[in-house]
Amino acid sequence: MRIRRVTVTPVAFHDPALLNAVGVHEPYALRSIIQLHCDDGVVGLGESYGDDSFLDLLQAAARAITGMDVFQLGRIQQVVGSAVGSGAFADSHGLTGGSSSSKTVLSVFSAFEVACLDAQGKAVGRPVADLLGGAVRDSVPFSAYLFYKWAEHPGAARGAARGAAAGGAPGGGEDGWGAALDPDGIVRQARRMIDQYGFGAVKLKGGVFAPEEEIEAIHALRAAFPELPLRLDPNAAWTVPTSVKVAEQLDGVLEYLEDPTAGIEGMAQVARRAPMPLATNMCVVAPEHLAPGLRQQAIGVLLSDHHYWGGLRLSQHLSTLCASFDVGLSMHSNSHLGISLAAMVQLAAATQHLSYACDTHWPWKREDEDVVVPGALRFVDGAVPVPQGPGLGVELDPDALARLHELYLACGLRRRDDTAYMRRLHPGYLPHTPGW
Amino acid sequence: MRIRRVTVTPVAFHDPALLNAVGVHEPYALRSIIQLHCDDGVVGLGESYGDDSFLDLLQAAARAITGMDVFQLGRIQQVVGSAVGSGAFADSHGLTGGSSSSKTVLSVFSAFEVACLDAQGKAVGRPVADLLGGAVRDSVPFSAYLFYKWAEHPGAARGAARGAAAGGAPGGGEDGWGAALDPDGIVRQARRMIDQYGFGAVKLKGGVFAPEEEIEAIHALRAAFPELPLRLDPNAAWTVPTSVKVAEQLDGVLEYLEDPTAGIEGMAQVARRAPMPLATNMCVVAPEHLAPGLRQQAIGVLLSDHHYWGGLRLSQHLSTLCASFDVGLSMHSNSHLGISLAAMVQLAAATQHLSYACDTHWPWKREDEDVVVPGALRFVDGAVPVPQGPGLGVELDPDALARLHELYLACGLRRRDDTAYMRRLHPGYLPHTPGW
Repeated sequence: MRIRRVTVTPVAFHDPALLNAVGVHEPYALRSIIQLHCDDGVVGLGESYGDDSFLDLLQAAARAITGMDVFQLGRIQQVVGSAVGSGAFADSHGLTGGSSSSKTVLSVFSAFEVACLDAQGKAVGRPVADLLGGAVRDSVPFSAYLFYKWAEHPGAARGAARGAAAGGAPGGGEDGWGAALDPDGIVRQARRMIDQYGFGAVKLKGGVFAPEEEIEAIHALRAAFPELPLRLDPNAAWTVPTSVKVAEQLDGVLEYLEDPTAGIEGMAQVARRAPMPLATNMCVVAPEHLAPGLRQQAIGVLLSDHHYWGGLRLSQHLSTLCASFDVGLSMHSNSHLGISLAAMVQLAAATQHLSYACDTHWPWKREDEDVVVPGALRFVDGAVPVPQGPGLGVELDPDALARLHELYLACGLRRRDDTAYMRRLHPGYLPHTPGW
Repeated sequence: MRIRRVTVTPVAFHDPALLNAVGVHEPYALRSIIQLHCDDGVVGLGESYGDDSFLDLLQAAARAITGMDVFQLGRIQQVVGSAVGSGAFADSHGLTGGSSSSKTVLSVFSAFEVACLDAQGKAVGRPVADLLGGAVRDSVPFSAYLFYKWAEHPGAARGAARGAAAGGAPGGGEDGWGAALDPDGIVRQARRMIDQYGFGAVKLKGGVFAPEEEIEAIHALRAAFPELPLRLDPNAAWTVPTSVKVAEQLDGVLEYLEDPTAGIEGMAQVARRAPMPLATNMCVVAPEHLAPGLRQQAIGVLLSDHHYWGGLRLSQHLSTLCASFDVGLSMHSNSHLGISLAAMVQLAAATQHLSYACDTHWPWKREDEDVVVPGALRFVDGAVPVPQGPGLGVELDPDALARLHELYLACGLRRRDDTAYMRRLHPGYLPHTPGW
C-alpha cells in the first residue's frame, strides 16, 4: 500500500472572537488537509496546522515520503525527520509550549501518521481504533470549552467583504453566541453549550481578566451547575504565588487547574501546594519534557495532543507512561475540523487510560463549515460515538474542501497570531504571560 | 475476525544443565503453545510459560475470550483481567522479579495478545511488525548467552528413560557443549557460540560462583574477544557493597551490569556508584515499578520481555518511556521456542529505541526440537532477519507440536523449579540471592 501522491491543501474556516491570555482568535482559523493517494484508489486523510511555515515543512515531508508504504510508520518518521531537518517550528500564538526540532518533527510526522493510519484502515476494512488495539469505549466524552469573547470581530465589515469574495458566509461578523465578558455571560454560554451538546464537564479558558474575576466566573458556574466538573486554564498567565492563591481559593471547586504558570519548575512549585491536580499542554509538550516533568511531579494531568505528540500511536504510548506514573490523561484541542475530531475520537476510544473528558473547540465552528461529509460525527450526551467505518470513519467532501481552500486564499491570513490581531485592534496590548 | 476456539498445549523440550543463582535448569523446559482458531481458517499462534499454575490461568482466559474479535485487544485485556482475577502467579524460580496480580494479568494477556496479532497479520496479509508501526531494521541483533554448566544432567539415565518413553532423543544426557565451570570453559563456550551464530555481544549468567571467579571469567572473555561488548548477570546474588566493588573492578570492561542486587532501593544505591549502567529484568518488571525505578534512577537499561509486559504493543510503549527517560532498552529471555523468538524479532524490528543486542536462550535448544516449521528463523552474523510472511512469519508443525506435547506428558515436570532440582542433587543447597 504505497503512497503515490500527496496533496496538502491549506484551508480556512470562520472563528469567533475568542479571547485568551495572548490576544484574541482571528476571524479565520487555518488548517492543512492532507490526502495520501495510495494504491487501489485508497486515499488517507490527515489534518494539522495551517500556518505558512508549517505548510512548507509539510510539503517538504510530503515529497520525501512519496513512494513509501503506509504501514512503514517508523521509517516514515525517520524520513520526515531528515526532510524537516533541525529547524524548529514555533506556533505564533505560544499556547502550546515552547518549540524544539524534536517537537517540530513529531508535529509534521503526526499529520502523515494519521493519514497513513486512515489509509491502513481503509485498506484492511477496519476503523483506526482497531489498528490501535481496538475501542475500549463506544463513545468519547468531551468537555464544554468556554471562552470569554466579543459578540463579533471588530473588523466585521472587512471580514464580511473577504468572506463574500470567497463565496462563503459573511466573515467575522456576529457568530450567534453573543458576548461573554463577565460571570453572567460565561454562565449563559455554558448553559447554551450544554443544552446543545450535553457536555458533562466544563472548561473555562482564562488568563483574560484578573484572577479574581475568573474565580468569580468559576463560582458562578459552580452555582449554576452544582454537579459538573469544572476546569480553568489561564495559559500560564499567572506567577507562582498567584497560582497558589487561586488554587487555594478554588479548592473543592475545580477538578483540575490547567497551566496556571509557566515551565516545569514553576508548575512543580505550584503543584506542591495546590489542592487539585495541575494539568498541562504547555510545560510538557515533547518527549524531552517527560522525565523532568514527571520526576519533579510538576503535573497531575497530561493534556495530550496527537498533532504534536507524534500521531496516534505515540500518543497511545503516552497513556501507558501516564498510567505508570499515576498521572491523569486527557486531550488538548486547537480550533479544528472533522478529520482531527475523528482522529481524536479513534485515539481516545482505543486508549484505556483516559481520565477526563477531552477538550474540543468543535462548538465554535460553524455547523455547515467542514471538509468532511456531514453525519459521521455527532454529539450524544456530550460524547462522540466512535465512527464505525473503515479508517478514521469520515469521508472528504471535495466541494467543501475547495470552498474552504478558496476561503483560505481570500482571507489573507497566513499564520495564526492572536497577539498581532489584538494589537491591530488595541495598540499597546501586551500578552498576559505572566500578567498577574 | 472472531476467535472460535482456543487450544492451549503444554510442551516440553530438552534443556542443558545451565547453572544460575538459584540452582540449575531441569532436563526439560516447559512452554505453552496457544492456537486461536478464527474465522476463515486463520490460526493465531502464541507461546508462553508452561508451569501448571500458569496453564490453569491460560485455560480460564481462553474460555473467556472465545467469541471475541482479535482486533479488540483492549477489551480482551479487560476480559482476561476478569478471568484471571486477583490471584498472583509467581514463577517458581524467582528470576523475573516479584509477582503481583497486575503482572499476572499482563503475563496471561501477553500470550493471547501475540496470538491475536499473528491472526491479525494473517488476516490482512502483513507481518506483525507492520501492525506495530513497521520494521525500522531488517534484522534483530542478539547476544551470546553464556552459562556456567555441567557437561550433562546428573539424572541422565533416568532422563534418558523418560525421553525414550516419549519417543524423543535421550533426555538429560550429554548436550554436546561440555562443561563450563571456570574461565577457560566459559571462553571455550563463547568461542563456539560466536563461531556458530556470529554474535556481536556476550552475556555471562553469573551468581553461580564467588564474584572474584566471575570477574576472572569476564576478564578472560575480554582477553579472548577484545572488541565485543560484555555483560554480567548475577541475578541479584550480591549485596550492595559487593555489587559496588564488582562494578568498580569491571569499569571499562562491561557495557552493562545486570541485576547485581535485589530491589529498586538496592539497585539505586549501586547505580549511584557504578561506572556502567545497571540493567534489570528483576526490579522493574511491572507497570507499578516504572515510576519508582525511574524516579530513583535505579536502572540504566530495561530488559523488557513481552511475555510479562503485556505483549508486543505494550512492550513498544515501554520503549517510548525508556527513550524519554534516557534509559536503554533491550530484551530479556527465558528458555523458549520459535513462536516466542518470532514474536521477539517482530517486536524488536518495529521498536525504534532498542539500545543493545537482545538476549536469547536459542543456542541452548536442540536444533531439531521446536514446534515451528524450520527455515523461517535463522541467525546471520548474530542477528535474526525479520520473517517476511504474514503474522509472526512462522508456521506451526502439528507433528512437532504433538511430539513435544508427548515429551511434556512423559517428562513428569509440571513447573520449573531450579532450586528444588538442585536440592535433589545436592541436599542442603541454598540459593545465592543474595549469597555474596
